[in-house]
Amino acid sequence: MDKTDKIGRYDFVAEPFHVDFTGRLTLGVLGNHLLNCAGFHAADRGFGIAEVNEENYTWVLSRLVIEMKDMPRQYEKFSVGTWVENVYRLFTDRNYVITGKDGNILGYARSVWAMISMNTRKPADLLALHGGRITDYICREEECPIGKPSRIKVGVSEPSATLTARYSDIDINGHVNSIRYIEHILDLFPIDMYKEGSIRRFEMAYMAESYYGDTLSFYKEDLGDGCYGVEVRKNGTEAVCRAKIFFGDGGDQETDK
Amino acid sequence: MDKTDKIGRYDFVAEPFHVDFTGRLTLGVLGNHLLNCAGFHAADRGFGIAEVNEENYTWVLSRLVIEMKDMPRQYEKFSVGTWVENVYRLFTDRNYVITGKDGNILGYARSVWAMISMNTRKPADLLALHGGRITDYICREEECPIGKPSRIKVGVSEPSATLTARYSDIDINGHVNSIRYIEHILDLFPIDMYKEGSIRRFEMAYMAESYYGDTLSFYKEDLGDGCYGVEVRKNGTEAVCRAKIFFGDGGDQETDK
Repeated sequence: MDKTDKIGRYDFVAEPFHVDFTGRLTLGVLGNHLLNCAGFHAADRGFGIAEVNEENYTWVLSRLVIEMKDMPRQYEKFSVGTWVENVYRLFTDRNYVITGKDGNILGYARSVWAMISMNTRKPADLLALHGGRITDYICREEECPIGKPSRIKVGVSEPSATLTARYSDIDINGHVNSIRYIEHILDLFPIDMYKEGSIRRFEMAYMAESYYGDTLSFYKEDLGDGCYGVEVRKNGTEAVCRAKIFFGDGGDQETDK
Repeated sequence: MDKTDKIGRYDFVAEPFHVDFTGRLTLGVLGNHLLNCAGFHAADRGFGIAEVNEENYTWVLSRLVIEMKDMPRQYEKFSVGTWVENVYRLFTDRNYVITGKDGNILGYARSVWAMISMNTRKPADLLALHGGRITDYICREEECPIGKPSRIKVGVSEPSATLTARYSDIDINGHVNSIRYIEHILDLFPIDMYKEGSIRRFEMAYMAESYYGDTLSFYKEDLGDGCYGVEVRKNGTEAVCRAKIFFGDGGDQETDK
């Protein structure tokens, strides 16, 4: 199988209600597109969510890292390429490249997925999935030159914001959806921070599910140099996800934090 | 000009993060698609927002009514047809039909738009726009068999919810975006109401703009028979928009309220 079969490419346009006040695509919308592309790519190759559901398995997003040099502007066309970098027994790494209208690279993303049994909620062996055929799609020819997901620790004791999970937060599985957490986290920062700079790197670690009516508390820590850690806890205790957000002009040292 | 030139048709698919916990497309996402279709249709005919901006005018959404018999389910394809029904001096009526994957009609929508000067914020004469050419696109051959926008009155004195407009609420014009109001209004209702029924008709009247940091208060009144009125006020006083929401199985008498 050659490289072109392994990489899926999907075209988008930055719609008016999908850009922020600066006219740039929002990170939540980009995250949504990335996860959709993962779905398209996997479905076209026989291991999409509908296919694995038939065998009572489902895909679970564990990590998402997005690192952008720039964002598409309102009405601009852009595309997302995605491929599988690695398949381990319990996790698979899927990467992305986001390309502007002139073929210029706007940024990259990394994601880590597990597959679980819908009956037992226990992780499944990915190397056994479809008789191991998922490994046929591993693509080593494409580079993803951004840092891997880093460890996220948040050490503050008072939440910056608290909300109750509402109708619009809940997906078809009855959980607060992965993208909504990103939007709520972006809303923790004053708009001036988006005027003065932009988010260069955004990491999410998804650990547990939250549900309709859950109280979500957002613990935000300033880690210095434009870097912030956020932990989201449900009902005052359990951590459901953590994020690390890098504002500014980026650089190579970001994952050292 | 024949009917096919007057009607624009656009294809969509109901994406996973665009459906609610019942697996149906959310009304906010549908509203977003409708407004985008208005933009595509107008741009293709020379009176889109980019074109009118060049002459220092802009389109302003005044009313939106959506009435659905059913909603597309997750991963289902659907399409939106849109056309201009009427052009008056200060307003134009644009209608929509939403069609399912088999060509079955899922519902209809109506919208009312004004054009204002970006310098004076005063309304512009639509009959003079592009030498009156917008009237060439008036289409009387297509029906939109749903009630016109009705008058919305809300008579309660205590808000059901209050929030502060955040980063994610704000569009490229610096205003809380039209779709976000819909999402916040949907979140006023307990999830059980979406389990037991669905929204059959949703009316929005946009009256004023709100901005980052504004306090938005949501006044919700139960008008009986599954019908609710909502008024959104900014900073405790000025009404920025009103909504009327009909839950249930629909019917022909809905706009009598």
